[in-house]
Amino acid sequence: MAHILIIGGSDAGISAALRAREVDPTAPVTMLVADAFPNYSICGLPFYLSGEVADWHQLAHRTLGDIESAGIRVRLNTRALAIDPASHTVRVQTESQAPETVPYDKLVIGTGAEPIRPPIPGVDHPGVFLLHSMADSFRVAAHLDTHQPQRALIIGAGYIGLEMADALRHRGLAVTVAEQAPAVLPTIDPDLGGRLGTHLTAHGVAVRTGIRIERITRTGDTLHVTGSPSFAEDTDLVLVVVGVQPVTDLAHAAGLALGLKGAIPVDRTMATALPDIYAAGDCVETYHRLLGAPTYLPLGTTAHKQGRVAGDNAAGGDAHFAGSLGTQVVKVFDWAIARTGFRDHEAVAAGYQPQTVEFTAWDHKAYYPGARELTFRITGDRETGRLLGAQMLGHWQAAVAKRIDFFAMALYHQMTVAQCLEVDLSYTPPLGSPWDAVQMAAEHWLRVARSGRSR
Amino acid sequence: MAHILIIGGSDAGISAALRAREVDPTAPVTMLVADAFPNYSICGLPFYLSGEVADWHQLAHRTLGDIESAGIRVRLNTRALAIDPASHTVRVQTESQAPETVPYDKLVIGTGAEPIRPPIPGVDHPGVFLLHSMADSFRVAAHLDTHQPQRALIIGAGYIGLEMADALRHRGLAVTVAEQAPAVLPTIDPDLGGRLGTHLTAHGVAVRTGIRIERITRTGDTLHVTGSPSFAEDTDLVLVVVGVQPVTDLAHAAGLALGLKGAIPVDRTMATALPDIYAAGDCVETYHRLLGAPTYLPLGTTAHKQGRVAGDNAAGGDAHFAGSLGTQVVKVFDWAIARTGFRDHEAVAAGYQPQTVEFTAWDHKAYYPGARELTFRITGDRETGRLLGAQMLGHWQAAVAKRIDFFAMALYHQMTVAQCLEVDLSYTPPLGSPWDAVQMAAEHWLRVARSGRSR
Repeated sequence: MAHILIIGGSDAGISAALRAREVDPTAPVTMLVADAFPNYSICGLPFYLSGEVADWHQLAHRTLGDIESAGIRVRLNTRALAIDPASHTVRVQTESQAPETVPYDKLVIGTGAEPIRPPIPGVDHPGVFLLHSMADSFRVAAHLDTHQPQRALIIGAGYIGLEMADALRHRGLAVTVAEQAPAVLPTIDPDLGGRLGTHLTAHGVAVRTGIRIERITRTGDTLHVTGSPSFAEDTDLVLVVVGVQPVTDLAHAAGLALGLKGAIPVDRTMATALPDIYAAGDCVETYHRLLGAPTYLPLGTTAHKQGRVAGDNAAGGDAHFAGSLGTQVVKVFDWAIARTGFRDHEAVAAGYQPQTVEFTAWDHKAYYPGARELTFRITGDRETGRLLGAQMLGHWQAAVAKRIDFFAMALYHQMTVAQCLEVDLSYTPPLGSPWDAVQMAAEHWLRVARSGRSR
Repeated sequence: MAHILIIGGSDAGISAALRAREVDPTAPVTMLVADAFPNYSICGLPFYLSGEVADWHQLAHRTLGDIESAGIRVRLNTRALAIDPASHTVRVQTESQAPETVPYDKLVIGTGAEPIRPPIPGVDHPGVFLLHSMADSFRVAAHLDTHQPQRALIIGAGYIGLEMADALRHRGLAVTVAEQAPAVLPTIDPDLGGRLGTHLTAHGVAVRTGIRIERITRTGDTLHVTGSPSFAEDTDLVLVVVGVQPVTDLAHAAGLALGLKGAIPVDRTMATALPDIYAAGDCVETYHRLLGAPTYLPLGTTAHKQGRVAGDNAAGGDAHFAGSLGTQVVKVFDWAIARTGFRDHEAVAAGYQPQTVEFTAWDHKAYYPGARELTFRITGDRETGRLLGAQMLGHWQAAVAKRIDFFAMALYHQMTVAQCLEVDLSYTPPLGSPWDAVQMAAEHWLRVARSGRSR
């Protein structure tokens, strides 16, 4: 029986371990977890820091007992020091013990990502925090409790930055968000980002875009943050959330060349270039289904799927990663903002002739109480009529997330925009329309594309 | 320019008219509307009768002005008396005028359906109502206002019966629902129907299943309703909602043979057997995409799609109806109940070896406030692993409708249950899980199917 060793106990690692045991219930599976928190939902950290999740233990996708009862040996606080592909062993260090050598028949690397630490002078001052791991989160939580900061500055207006703006407002802090791009949430069109910025402002967040932070200094407990053009703010807490980078030192030292943004190249079975070594999750290049090529797009959903494929194959299966579509959603105050597939410039880069058309529709029949407006931006190819991507913005309880999934399904199947109208979707007046809003948006794209208008 | 004549101003007729004008903006299009209410949402009637929609005018999908400004000639209160396929004319009667003859080059029949009037002695008593049209609705509304009934009996626990139970409870009436089948909502599995019955009971509805109503008598304003086994109830209002049947007298008299349940057979271009005559909506047989054969499944969503195809072709286009998947959703009190595709017995009839597996999951990460349980019943083929159908039940604000659409998309594309796990769906903790509940339900089906268990 092949021994399957897994480095990493987050989404990719745990998915690999569970799937391996499912495919081969007799396979010995060992999971090395560098900290004491296997299988925690790091996507949940903002909701813990907001106070909405009272106890951080609730953030566990599964308990240690759940994992062990699946027949997985979990070694907590156990750090992998080096992989030796030739001897099929990993050198590991458990707290306060001498390093040991663990053999493997199949290895899955799930070392994840770490926050990017920008080269801003002062980024190491007390009161300045990166946020990615459970440990980071505990540090921020402790600071919030002990220092009771009244003001916070968030550097970076991506998903986590905006969720943290919401979280800290929830706790009553005065919050400023500073973003280098022209609008918040640079993963969506600036038009939509601008409206989201207004929504943040309406919820008491000071939004500063087009700002490059240049220096953080400290006087007592007060942090002075300066940037250009003309940014200067005193604050009590700084969160630096400007993205993540893959953790690949082990893989690289083992002889694996690194690819896009330093991530580990893998094929669609999640195999690396080294025999019997798979890798999955935030540490690898991700196959993009629409590009037909790798990209770097670290997301929990993807990590779960890739981990499952890696574990399946490590246990002797024959699984393939279907690919990312770039589907994402975030809740910020009252809104959910979602996207899937390509935006205009990405579609151009991929060789398409995209047209993006905006449309607004009610989430359900307006005569039934509580109807909310949904804004769509549909991107399709002028030449072939193929759907290339969709963006949405609307009230978080207006099924934005599940509506973007309609477009994700359409992209998965390479549907044309016109085909989107054919599908027999559900309808009842309190929950939709005879043509659901997603189909009205698709129909509007067709109308505009046919007319040759630009919008 | 071909003159396009449309009989019927509800979902199919209006969709045909609008699409015809889109395909050929120069085509003269005339729509004959038997009453004064073109393009009303009859699905909205329960919400008008509940009082949630204050003004019935709000139920219009579009105003008469909207329709006319699309270049459609709308003739209200104009009834088609006879179609003469040989001379390409329709004899029409407008209120208080002599009948006239209207020529057509292309005709679209969208005469819809009417409620089934069961042969129950006493069904014509004052205080007993069928419910399908705007006029029916006004009669019920007037009765509610003038008689102030305190008690209502609803015969039939299908979609409209249950929505009306909710609506009349909303108005404060004591409500009994009597259904002939062993559970309410016979379009879903009796297991789920039973739970829905309990939910109705919890909201003060007396639920009587397995009851055949046999007689209605009347003393003053009190109606005495009896049935077997052992059903006897005095009430102030009876609603009879036991389904609909196609309105096809015109089509039949014109020489069209009738098909399933008396509906008009059409091909996938929505053409009838007579030259230049199309038909769409509740009056026609509906192509079922999974069966690859016609069925009778009158729904607003389908009527819109079929009308669009008919109008497209009448205007010289080349459109095909993709087919129904049997997707349906209804809100009853706090719950939404949805289905798409086949249930077990339907799959058996279609030659599959179905297995239906139930699963329960949270609609979003349980650590985020407000998580709700969703119940799934996934039906797949044991032999091929192909997805055959899905049923769902859960809180109406837990995106049940848009989640059943995931399965509708999967059925449209003939996906296997395993493939459902591959798709890159959206995730954020307040709105889903890294594997959305729909994917967890699919995974559970796979686990059970692999284990050879029956559940």
